[in-house]
Amino acid sequence: MRQSQMFGKTIREAPKDSILPSHKFLYQGGFIRESAAGRYYFLPLGWRVHDKIRTVIKKEMDRAGAQEMITPVLHPITLWKESNRTSSVGFELMKVEDRNGTEFVLGGTAEEMLVDLVRKFSISYKDLPFTLYQFSVKFRDELRARGGLLRLREFVMKDAYSFHATEEDFKKEYEKMRETYSTIFRNLGLETIVVESDNGYIGGEYCHEFVVESDAGESRFLTTDDDSYAAHEDVAKFQKYQGDADEEEMARKDVEGKGVIGVAELAKFLNIPVEKTTKTILFETEKGEVIAAAVNGIYDINEVKLKNIVGCVELSLARSEVVEKVTRAKVGYAGILNLSKEVKIIMDDSLRGRKNFECGANRTDYHSININFGRDVPEPERFYDIALAKEGYLSVEGKPLVAKKGIEVGNIFQLGFHYSSKMKGAHFIDRNGDQKHYYMGCYGIGLARTMATIVEMYHDEKGIMWPGIAAPFRVHLIEIKSQKSEVRSAAETLYEELLAKGIEVLYDDRDDKTAGEKFADADLIGIPWRVVVSEKTLEQNSVEVKARNSREVVLVLLEEIQNKFS
Amino acid sequence: MRQSQMFGKTIREAPKDSILPSHKFLYQGGFIRESAAGRYYFLPLGWRVHDKIRTVIKKEMDRAGAQEMITPVLHPITLWKESNRTSSVGFELMKVEDRNGTEFVLGGTAEEMLVDLVRKFSISYKDLPFTLYQFSVKFRDELRARGGLLRLREFVMKDAYSFHATEEDFKKEYEKMRETYSTIFRNLGLETIVVESDNGYIGGEYCHEFVVESDAGESRFLTTDDDSYAAHEDVAKFQKYQGDADEEEMARKDVEGKGVIGVAELAKFLNIPVEKTTKTILFETEKGEVIAAAVNGIYDINEVKLKNIVGCVELSLARSEVVEKVTRAKVGYAGILNLSKEVKIIMDDSLRGRKNFECGANRTDYHSININFGRDVPEPERFYDIALAKEGYLSVEGKPLVAKKGIEVGNIFQLGFHYSSKMKGAHFIDRNGDQKHYYMGCYGIGLARTMATIVEMYHDEKGIMWPGIAAPFRVHLIEIKSQKSEVRSAAETLYEELLAKGIEVLYDDRDDKTAGEKFADADLIGIPWRVVVSEKTLEQNSVEVKARNSREVVLVLLEEIQNKFS
Repeated sequence: MRQSQMFGKTIREAPKDSILPSHKFLYQGGFIRESAAGRYYFLPLGWRVHDKIRTVIKKEMDRAGAQEMITPVLHPITLWKESNRTSSVGFELMKVEDRNGTEFVLGGTAEEMLVDLVRKFSISYKDLPFTLYQFSVKFRDELRARGGLLRLREFVMKDAYSFHATEEDFKKEYEKMRETYSTIFRNLGLETIVVESDNGYIGGEYCHEFVVESDAGESRFLTTDDDSYAAHEDVAKFQKYQGDADEEEMARKDVEGKGVIGVAELAKFLNIPVEKTTKTILFETEKGEVIAAAVNGIYDINEVKLKNIVGCVELSLARSEVVEKVTRAKVGYAGILNLSKEVKIIMDDSLRGRKNFECGANRTDYHSININFGRDVPEPERFYDIALAKEGYLSVEGKPLVAKKGIEVGNIFQLGFHYSSKMKGAHFIDRNGDQKHYYMGCYGIGLARTMATIVEMYHDEKGIMWPGIAAPFRVHLIEIKSQKSEVRSAAETLYEELLAKGIEVLYDDRDDKTAGEKFADADLIGIPWRVVVSEKTLEQNSVEVKARNSREVVLVLLEEIQNKFS
Repeated sequence: MRQSQMFGKTIREAPKDSILPSHKFLYQGGFIRESAAGRYYFLPLGWRVHDKIRTVIKKEMDRAGAQEMITPVLHPITLWKESNRTSSVGFELMKVEDRNGTEFVLGGTAEEMLVDLVRKFSISYKDLPFTLYQFSVKFRDELRARGGLLRLREFVMKDAYSFHATEEDFKKEYEKMRETYSTIFRNLGLETIVVESDNGYIGGEYCHEFVVESDAGESRFLTTDDDSYAAHEDVAKFQKYQGDADEEEMARKDVEGKGVIGVAELAKFLNIPVEKTTKTILFETEKGEVIAAAVNGIYDINEVKLKNIVGCVELSLARSEVVEKVTRAKVGYAGILNLSKEVKIIMDDSLRGRKNFECGANRTDYHSININFGRDVPEPERFYDIALAKEGYLSVEGKPLVAKKGIEVGNIFQLGFHYSSKMKGAHFIDRNGDQKHYYMGCYGIGLARTMATIVEMYHDEKGIMWPGIAAPFRVHLIEIKSQKSEVRSAAETLYEELLAKGIEVLYDDRDDKTAGEKFADADLIGIPWRVVVSEKTLEQNSVEVKARNSREVVLVLLEEIQNKFS
């Protein structure tokens, strides 16, 4: 490609809202432009990279035996109603109606579509297992899109769906996809950590995120030093404080303490250890339910864990009038004592077995101490895990947890019978001639986010440093403007020769740019090899060759350069 | 690919509503399944074909210097308002709103998006011309979708947009795209006729359809035997009846003739030649305008020509109460005489220069004869072409027109300044430093329709006969089940050898199918080469080779077969 003819110029200014290198460099380098928030144009340069990533993914998916196909972009809403996802997805779902009044969903994933397709066929155990995948545009009506390609409202996703006769068979595919994904990302230059995670609105019982460790990421996860455990903070388990069940019960007291709110302050004020305090927080769900969530004062509440237990889509702090109604006290003194019956109480298992603990008195300005289960408050039928894991806590196996941040580039999900049991006709005929639901899994990679992640991992202060496999071109051939026509003709000849060898070349043939401008553009765009033809190099019958990720500049004879990149 | 593992079985039953071979065979062969009307799943076999077509198109577009990129699927409605297409497109446009209340359009084409992208850059005459293209999902909210892939509501389109400093420069690209398109279709085995056509809602002054002649098509066009003229009936011009301007004007008469309606009957009843009669038809537009369209009685009205002149989106026959109001007579007696002032009269140029003609009297049961312009009815400032061209009429150059039907597989459009003049900032800086609007063109190919067209052109009563370039696989290797394990091992070996040579093979390794079933499936799926391994062929150390489009079956030695397809 001749750079003089390429659409999409480099630009010095960064977008106003750009914080991340991937956003800044992809914009400045002429890879992307924003259409609306979270919706991007990919310019020719950017689309080449996107396409390379697609090729890497396709190769490994095909090798793993998955079969590429495509579903329509518009999903009939009737299918999403069958799986009950129209309500569980909440506001992230966009709907559209055609002129005949038929309603469709702009899908974020396509489980229902795949089940709908598969059930059009009479499937028997002999046809199972199979894995289908597609590269298709997905929509997420995110409240906030982030700058650049890291959190988009519209993007190409490689989504795959597997169908199995048994759980055992599924597990083999899950493992195969886990390996396939690791290979895909490694091929793209990304080392991923496989992290247990929350399944969001996909459903199923367990899933894993593929995370590239990076401060630019939004995934917070915890690992142990020996990598034996890695889990997103929304699901991470840890060893919790165990109360001394043998402690003697003391007499309950209500202590006046106006305005004493934080657990540390309160413990000091009450002269008790912090682990005797309780954090009780009141929430409201989208259905208007009021939830009281209580954890040992040394912990915080993880709202995703809580949501999953409650089974709601939205969770917000209860409005003060609600707090006052259910606690019959001002805000700040809520506890698990004598709450109005409409309140659903969820207690973390860090409360189990405690004696003589503190909690809000549900009485303005008062705190209760020496509270005991059974005597002062009924012991719940079940304790739950709603506490937020943090660095330094011990893993279930007793190893210290380390907190990390990363970018989620892929996911694999066990779906089990989540969809096949809800959707009519989602079954196969087994060996005995009986109808059975198939067992499913799904597997996704966001291509644009992967592209941004590569830039986050491969750049310096001057611009991008693409790994070869994802680079838009292999060679950036730069002709330094000269009065001598030999320079132009040598560059043109070399360009044609490299192309003839099947090497992808971006040829900077621009007449109105200085050497400095061309070098700066080359550093910004980040093609792996820079080859410079100038009067000076031609005096030695050579070109100057520099790798983008090295400082070394070497002279290579013209007659040899053609073989350097084959 | 092993057929035993391939998702998407062949099936004997055709879809209930299938009339067209492309619909029937693509369904039966396991290439496609319908999701909702006009929205299709492409199964692995079908998606391979779609991908081959994409590859052919991409190769030629790249060769022509066009640059691939992508726009978001959701187009901000504000852009469509700038170009005023929200109103002109009418009901074919689907709209969707995000949670923030921002409105988007599900685009049918992407002119506004491309202009919006290009205007984000400071473009000068040095950057022009360039052509950008994409393969992206397009939406058309068609009232009726046709069975199969011929008329879809959602499909992948290759749409390209070119930007130029001058009309002359645009014309070169238009010609280049015309040639590129012809090459693309020829490579895919389709001979196309380039037909002048109506620009629909795209805008611009002229455009051409690429049509494959076929009874399955919906494009009606007219050509001359020597191919010097080809035009869609919506734009086709022809030599019209010329009245004798020297004829002496006779006295106007109103003749009572209740219920005499058709022009032939009327001419007989009035004892005048049919060419003296006038057809006057009253229409209403979507804005409530009433239009009287009049042609010489020997012709019919083409509503698309009429719509373009009136500048409306919808045109429907006027309701009887409207007819009665503006003609002050019952339905059936409308003419161009004394119509109510609100009526806009559009006269075809077949009325020009006529003397002593008939027209409805706008008086119940009456017909006026010997009507003359000037004396009885004002001569209009301008006559138009609103008559429908038909077989046998003479072209403007005097050659008889032949009526044909075909499938529109591609289009090229002159857009001129249609978009760049309407959208703010759609300009470049010319040599003199002045801002000028760029001159544009656009170019589209529907991939699914092209796929269906190939099937329409390449099939027999048993199934599809893919041209090699579009075939999902090159070789269909069939193993005939046998007690002897040598058959399986010979087939497996051959399969691996062919794959190793880079030949795409569908290997029918199914154990539960008879030879007859396998042959029937091979004929249905239509892979170019069928290679059969059986006990019988192995006795001669051979395989049986048959081309799908030939009856000849030849024995080829195993040691030679591996080279046959390289």
